[in-house]
Amino acid sequence: MALIVQKYGGTSVGDADRIKAVAARVAAAHDSGNQVVVVVSAMGDSTDRLVDLAAEVSGGRHPREMDMLLTAGERISMALLAMAIRDRGVEAMSLTGSQAGILTDTSHGEAKIRDIRAIRVREGLDQGRVVIVAGFQGVSPDTKEITTLGRGGSDATAVAMAAYLGADVCEIYTDVDGVFTADPRIVPGARKLDEVSFEEMLELAAAGARVLMMRSVEFARRFNVPLHVRSSFHDGEGTWVKENTMEDAAVTGVAHDLSEVKLTVRAVPDRPGVASAVFEPLSSAGVNVDMIVQNISHEGFTDISFTVARSDADRALGLARQAAAALGAGGVSLDDAIAKVSVVGAGMRTHPGIAARMFTVLADAGINIAMISTSPIRVSCVVDAAVAEEAVRLLHDAFDPPFEPQEESI
Amino acid sequence: MALIVQKYGGTSVGDADRIKAVAARVAAAHDSGNQVVVVVSAMGDSTDRLVDLAAEVSGGRHPREMDMLLTAGERISMALLAMAIRDRGVEAMSLTGSQAGILTDTSHGEAKIRDIRAIRVREGLDQGRVVIVAGFQGVSPDTKEITTLGRGGSDATAVAMAAYLGADVCEIYTDVDGVFTADPRIVPGARKLDEVSFEEMLELAAAGARVLMMRSVEFARRFNVPLHVRSSFHDGEGTWVKENTMEDAAVTGVAHDLSEVKLTVRAVPDRPGVASAVFEPLSSAGVNVDMIVQNISHEGFTDISFTVARSDADRALGLARQAAAALGAGGVSLDDAIAKVSVVGAGMRTHPGIAARMFTVLADAGINIAMISTSPIRVSCVVDAAVAEEAVRLLHDAFDPPFEPQEESI
Repeated sequence: MALIVQKYGGTSVGDADRIKAVAARVAAAHDSGNQVVVVVSAMGDSTDRLVDLAAEVSGGRHPREMDMLLTAGERISMALLAMAIRDRGVEAMSLTGSQAGILTDTSHGEAKIRDIRAIRVREGLDQGRVVIVAGFQGVSPDTKEITTLGRGGSDATAVAMAAYLGADVCEIYTDVDGVFTADPRIVPGARKLDEVSFEEMLELAAAGARVLMMRSVEFARRFNVPLHVRSSFHDGEGTWVKENTMEDAAVTGVAHDLSEVKLTVRAVPDRPGVASAVFEPLSSAGVNVDMIVQNISHEGFTDISFTVARSDADRALGLARQAAAALGAGGVSLDDAIAKVSVVGAGMRTHPGIAARMFTVLADAGINIAMISTSPIRVSCVVDAAVAEEAVRLLHDAFDPPFEPQEESI
Repeated sequence: MALIVQKYGGTSVGDADRIKAVAARVAAAHDSGNQVVVVVSAMGDSTDRLVDLAAEVSGGRHPREMDMLLTAGERISMALLAMAIRDRGVEAMSLTGSQAGILTDTSHGEAKIRDIRAIRVREGLDQGRVVIVAGFQGVSPDTKEITTLGRGGSDATAVAMAAYLGADVCEIYTDVDGVFTADPRIVPGARKLDEVSFEEMLELAAAGARVLMMRSVEFARRFNVPLHVRSSFHDGEGTWVKENTMEDAAVTGVAHDLSEVKLTVRAVPDRPGVASAVFEPLSSAGVNVDMIVQNISHEGFTDISFTVARSDADRALGLARQAAAALGAGGVSLDDAIAKVSVVGAGMRTHPGIAARMFTVLADAGINIAMISTSPIRVSCVVDAAVAEEAVRLLHDAFDPPFEPQEESI
């Protein structure tokens, strides 16, 4: 008998028929002798509809009331799912984030999970029930207020619940078959990975792979919770995300990200403190900066380029312009048609030359590289958005991931 | 400074514009120096839509999960209303039934309020806030489960909250202007009553007046909470429901009710225990019987007629047939085209002859009376559904309520 946490996203419970299909899957897992906890998101686009309704009623920011509003979404999906499971003769009960003991800090809209006290979840399991937990929501013990966890919150709920319960696996059900070596919509030959390590998955998520949020992967890595990313539409195996077990591939996947824009502060006087003058205000304003490149100085002046999320572009531009004026720099330019293309593989550590080969592949195709950044297991290049898909296809063809180069003979 | 509890039904918060209109009214009451608690129902037909969704997903009965589902409705309306009030510069917070300390028994779908522990409501008021409380919902301290209060639940929440807080008034906002001497859609000359006593309101509600449920009137009477039934569309005074203050009218209003059906158990052997044999099974099954008439025995046999809610008709018919068979009675007939027409007035106690005059008015119009029942302040007649509206108009014309007959000279 295993203890399984299953997480179903909004698409998987988007209408009555899909809820019944999920119920069938949950009941099958239970009837096979497993203990099952189900974490569920709000139905389909219901969260968006509640956000629209709030915008109709109010132009203001009301984070506490927004959380009260949005948490209605999972309440609806979880109650319906419990009914559908019970119809199959399996005892089931739904619990809100608060009832399930998801304790968070006080930040409405983007709360962090601080602790789990899933007493009622354990009780339910001990009574032989399937327990359905509302994703995305919790309660702050300090203020006694209902909170939401922000983007990727339901995955975070599932992983945290799995960690607390010591689950054998946390299954993340989604509308794709698993984690692929590249986006199959762009690379027809992309392959589903049977297995990927936590650290590779973190790099893939950071590089733009949408299937899992970094936050929940980080959580799973810290508590060593094996994740199984799989389709909610069929029974086939998906991708396991866990600690390294097999030989590391030099290149596990090619990822791309069109969600960022590039800003360049031009002709910055090259003296100590200029980077701080540019980036400290961004940090204080909560703007996340991804890549940073500072060019080699030329006659006492340098250019500083960096990327931020598209949604932060306007704020970042304003702050960078203020910093540029204060520094006596030449000005700030914004390029909003960029793409970040990355190759990721834990085997890079022991197989040098991956970066060089990536640059050659792009150069041979006449693709200009605007920025480069690397981690021990990732190389990312910023290129023109217009050639992003071509770049991904070329790199996937060149490396053929999961690519395991021949060991050199001694 | 007064403490006011305002209750808004689903129609009053049916869309974004109506929510903003309610917010304006609440803010005005607050800005006039009052402490304001607002009890709110789910938006428009949203509860019906959740019920439909549940029916799509499940054919079963899942009362606990149904309550979890339906309580999402007030969560949405109360959060939106809080936002709209805050937009007007008035501090406001919404509380679920559980957060507001509405403690109930364990009966999902039809829970009874057992106690109020509105600590967070008091705190909010002390902080100068408008506190918005979800109507219709509570929590059972025994099971820690979310419950709903059933029909008229939001009114019950409002009156209970007003009683607990010692409010000066509980304002029930609705889509009509108040309590009328008859249904204005049927009787064009019907008048809005300025004032009506608790006991008359109870009789009117029992007789079919839809504006208030008996349950909340009974609660208000027990705790002596003055109710003010008024329109959510304008500022005019509505109807006050409170303890008697003015001279009692002999006839305060004419009410009618098309929601019941009549069953007759025919040719029942007239011996002790037959009534019990008919009605005990109905009571055990939770079928509420309203009027009961047993005819004078004829050659050792009698007929027993009674009325029940239309929704209970099938169950009642089945149970009555079983009882009839066991008693050796002639059979059971069902008449589902009946109406109950009632005249109500506390002054009837001191002004006899109202019943007689009622029968004469109906007889003069050729309207046959199938059943009669009376209380000290009410006379009800069952007539054919087809002549119900005519009967109401004739009685309203005859008694011209609020009708105060001349005192007899000594």
